Amino acid sequence: MSNSTLDTFPNPRPERRYSIAIHCPEFTSLCPKTGLPDFGELRITYVPDARCVELKSLKYYLIEFRNRGIFYEAVTNQILDDLVSLLDPHEMTVVGDFSARGGITTSVTATHKKGQ
Amino acid sequence: MSNSTLDTFPNPRPERRYSIAIHCPEFTSLCPKTGLPDFGELRITYVPDARCVELKSLKYYLIEFRNRGIFYEAVTNQILDDLVSLLDPHEMTVVGDFSARGGITTSVTATHKKGQ
Amino acid sequence: MSNSTLDTFPNPRPERRYSIAIHCPEFTSLCPKTGLPDFGELRITYVPDARCVELKSLKYYLIEFRNRGIFYEAVTNQILDDLVSLLDPHEMTVVGDFSARGGITTSVTATHKKGQ
Amino acid sequence: MSNSTLDTFPNPRPERRYSIAIHCPEFTSLCPKTGLPDFGELRITYVPDARCVELKSLKYYLIEFRNRGIFYEAVTNQILDDLVSLLDPHEMTVVGDFSARGGITTSVTATHKKGQ
Amino acid sequence: MSNSTLDTFPNPRPERRYSIAIHCPEFTSLCPKTGLPDFGELRITYVPDARCVELKSLKYYLIEFRNRGIFYEAVTNQILDDLVSLLDPHEMTVVGDFSARGGITTSVTATHKKGQ
Amino acid sequence: MSNSTLDTFPNPRPERRYSIAIHCPEFTSLCPKTGLPDFGELRITYVPDARCVELKSLKYYLIEFRNRGIFYEAVTNQILDDLVSLLDPHEMTVVGDFSARGGITTSVTATHKKGQ
Amino acid sequence: MSNSTLDTFPNPRPERRYSIAIHCPEFTSLCPKTGLPDFGELRITYVPDARCVELKSLKYYLIEFRNRGIFYEAVTNQILDDLVSLLDPHEMTVVGDFSARGGITTSVTATHKKGQ
Amino acid sequence: MSNSTLDTFPNPRPERRYSIAIHCPEFTSLCPKTGLPDFGELRITYVPDARCVELKSLKYYLIEFRNRGIFYEAVTNQILDDLVSLLDPHEMTVVGDFSARGGITTSVTATHKKGQ
Amino acid sequence: MSNSTLDTFPNPRPERRYSIAIHCPEFTSLCPKTGLPDFGELRITYVPDARCVELKSLKYYLIEFRNRGIFYEAVTNQILDDLVSLLDPHEMTVVGDFSARGGITTSVTATHKKGQ
Amino acid sequence: MSNSTLDTFPNPRPERRYSIAIHCPEFTSLCPKTGLPDFGELRITYVPDARCVELKSLKYYLIEFRNRGIFYEAVTNQILDDLVSLLDPHEMTVVGDFSARGGITTSVTATHKKGQ
Repeated sequence: MSNSTLDTFPNPRPERRYSIAIHCPEFTSLCPKTGLPDFGELRITYVPDARCVELKSLKYYLIEFRNRGIFYEAVTNQILDDLVSLLDPHEMTVVGDFSARGGITTSVTATHKKGQ
Repeated sequence: MSNSTLDTFPNPRPERRYSIAIHCPEFTSLCPKTGLPDFGELRITYVPDARCVELKSLKYYLIEFRNRGIFYEAVTNQILDDLVSLLDPHEMTVVGDFSARGGITTSVTATHKKGQ
Repeated sequence: MSNSTLDTFPNPRPERRYSIAIHCPEFTSLCPKTGLPDFGELRITYVPDARCVELKSLKYYLIEFRNRGIFYEAVTNQILDDLVSLLDPHEMTVVGDFSARGGITTSVTATHKKGQ
Repeated sequence: MSNSTLDTFPNPRPERRYSIAIHCPEFTSLCPKTGLPDFGELRITYVPDARCVELKSLKYYLIEFRNRGIFYEAVTNQILDDLVSLLDPHEMTVVGDFSARGGITTSVTATHKKGQ
Repeated sequence: MSNSTLDTFPNPRPERRYSIAIHCPEFTSLCPKTGLPDFGELRITYVPDARCVELKSLKYYLIEFRNRGIFYEAVTNQILDDLVSLLDPHEMTVVGDFSARGGITTSVTATHKKGQ
Repeated sequence: MSNSTLDTFPNPRPERRYSIAIHCPEFTSLCPKTGLPDFGELRITYVPDARCVELKSLKYYLIEFRNRGIFYEAVTNQILDDLVSLLDPHEMTVVGDFSARGGITTSVTATHKKGQ
Repeated sequence: MSNSTLDTFPNPRPERRYSIAIHCPEFTSLCPKTGLPDFGELRITYVPDARCVELKSLKYYLIEFRNRGIFYEAVTNQILDDLVSLLDPHEMTVVGDFSARGGITTSVTATHKKGQ
Repeated sequence: MSNSTLDTFPNPRPERRYSIAIHCPEFTSLCPKTGLPDFGELRITYVPDARCVELKSLKYYLIEFRNRGIFYEAVTNQILDDLVSLLDPHEMTVVGDFSARGGITTSVTATHKKGQ
Repeated sequence: MSNSTLDTFPNPRPERRYSIAIHCPEFTSLCPKTGLPDFGELRITYVPDARCVELKSLKYYLIEFRNRGIFYEAVTNQILDDLVSLLDPHEMTVVGDFSARGGITTSVTATHKKGQ
Repeated sequence: MSNSTLDTFPNPRPERRYSIAIHCPEFTSLCPKTGLPDFGELRITYVPDARCVELKSLKYYLIEFRNRGIFYEAVTNQILDDLVSLLDPHEMTVVGDFSARGGITTSVTATHKKGQ
């Protein structure tokens, strides 16, 4: 996925290591096996370096998954990869909580730390 | 128990140590003493190495316990053993929360770490 | 289903119209289409006339559904029919709350009133 | 059971029909079949006429059930009978919520109205 | 108790029958038997006629109970009496929820309707 | 919208007026003004006459709204219209709870009764 | 307050009496006595006749209260009056829940029915 | 207190250090000062070595406290001592949560580690 | 404040370092600036050495604050100081949670460790 | 922003390192892009050195943001900067939780430690 829709703005306080937590409760994609919709929630937490992600562009970026077929494990890791390459944060964690399928709920947690 | 019903798929991001949490609120087996049903919830958390467990096969695997007589302590440890031998994960924890019998509730937590 | 496993005992206060509510959170049967387990909760409320249902026998009666294939609508109505024919209560309501399948939860409510 | 331990005091506002709700979350008696302890909560609501029940004496009265064997349906109705004969209230409801036995929870609700 | 501390203001919409609900979670008085503090919550709901109660004066009025010895049943009825004589509302309900003493919680509910 | 995807099955107990409640927490459509996704929950309750709605076909029917632009008020009424024309139930209520937009949450409730 | 900012749209199903519930958790105005901010939540429920209120314009209308000094009782009644004169609904209820001041919480509920 | 009523069974997986948590919400004893009943909950967590405690015998063991006068601090420590001498676990924690007396709630937590 | 009202009893198990947590949800004092009542909750946790605090005397000790004017920060620290000088515990933490004033809630946490 | 409105008082127990947590659930500012109101909650936790912040002045200080346009990241960092320069605390954390915009919720956490 190209990052074309994702905008950034300068971190207003880059000399302090503080954290930003973003909760997106309205995430949906398609199951690559059945083509049926999957629903979930995303929680993105990061310590910004030079730049922060602009929230409206993040919303449009996440809407692009709406009609894509992608597995839970892949979607969580891809969002982390895209945001890390965009922002180069000190650290970032993406958690994807997906609603029950077949009576089973899944949550995927992936973390990136700069320099590791 | 043979692992014949458990399928796996390749970890889409094996070079990153991320975690997958699976919640199965609909577990039932039989008490080996009385033959009466026990009900519980399972929580499986693991850091995958080369392979992940396929959720539909996990569901069928858990259904196989439906008419087996097995104690709480044994069922939790066996599921951990079966999944560890299947996936060889970096680490895995299985928690079994069993509903009240005689006014007493039991929870069993077992963890495996590779190389320990 | 024969009522052979259901026992009763005399209502200790038949001249007063009072109600008894029974909550069975551990109900399971099989889907008649797929053979896969369904899980649910039953809530039985009744105003006893001459007899009350004995709880241990009710438990065994409900366990008999464990390996039967039966739809949500049918199971709720059958339990009401069986208990009404056993107890002839002044009134009785059975509610079956079944857990999500395909992201959809279903609840069935059926009521019987004597003389209607 | 004699009402010897139950005390009353004059209703401070008998000309108004108001209600008093009493919640006793610490009720225990014995199962008459097995001799094992049952635990529950009692909720007593009434519209007093000339007299109100004194709470400390109510506590001692309820403690007398601690080592008695008595069924859920009977205990709820007896407490209603004892308090009605003591207070002659305009109306009174006793609800007994008993904790799970064999995975089944029971609640009994009995009501008395003066002149019915 | 004199109503000297209770102020009122004109109902801004007297031609409409609407309701005002006031929740005072910080009520305390003394037990007239033991002198020990009782704690509780008051809920006052009324349909105003010509006048509404001013909240700051209501707060000071309720603080006057802080060091008075008074029973639950009496305090609820007195507050209703004082506010009815002050406001002459279309209707008013006062609920006093008092915290546990001896493991028993008590709630008193008293209602006034104009012309009854 | 054609009802082609909606299947029914015979009511297993048509001589009793009982109710079926269906909760679909994963509904999404598009805003007809902005084209952005809306998310919501649907609650469908009905008293079946001759036929019940088959749940899997209901799921596919609701998925058809995924890429349609439609207002909250219209979607709730249309689902009611479609299901009433399909099932001719004794009565049916559809509630659509839509998540916040601009800090404002909306819920639409529409009811049909046969013969009214 | 002029209704200039409030827009409407045609009720998509005027021949059915259905209800629309709107929850605005982010309401703020000023206390007319102290000039300090008050915070609250508004719940607006109505049965539309020919027209519905457009949500974005409702949001802007409510923002106009941000820097106005107005009492709880007045704000709730004025919003009801403004919306009734705008929409002429079959019925409408406005509930204002205001957060604690001096340890006291207030809720005001006002209802309009056409032809009363 | 003799441990005569407490039974054990062999740990099914002694080579793994896993934990067992037992929740007993129905504990009652007597206050040694007043003779009045105390109510509480017990939480027992341990890492078993060679043996596990059998739950039914644990239930009977706890029932023996029903008519004993014993302080909160003493009962929590004694249960820990009895279970440690019975099971010789790698570690064990007993938490006693006792319900309010005089408006004050108490919780006692005691831990044993083998070899300390 | 003299400690005259605070009683102690010997720690029944002084050779084990275990903890006692006491929750007092009914604390009230006066604001030293306005003279108006403040309400709060106290949580006291300690590891006893030779002696434990007797709960009834603790209740009377806390009641002495009822008509004293004292700030949140001071009351929490004073209770810690008084109890430390009384009990000389291995460690103790006092948390005071005070209810909202002017829409702002405050919690103060103070800890003492022996020998620090 | 000048700190003119922020008052302090001497820490009553400066020789002990204890913490003060302040919760302000009623924060509002304006979005610098759209001019529309943002709503949020602030949580301020600090270990005071010589001085504590006076709560009433803190309230007035926060009200000054009511009609200012400022981003989430900036407001959280500025409040931390202002309070650190005012109090020179041992450490302080400010958390800003802002309500959903476009279905996305944001929380910003910034921490200062003396000498770092």
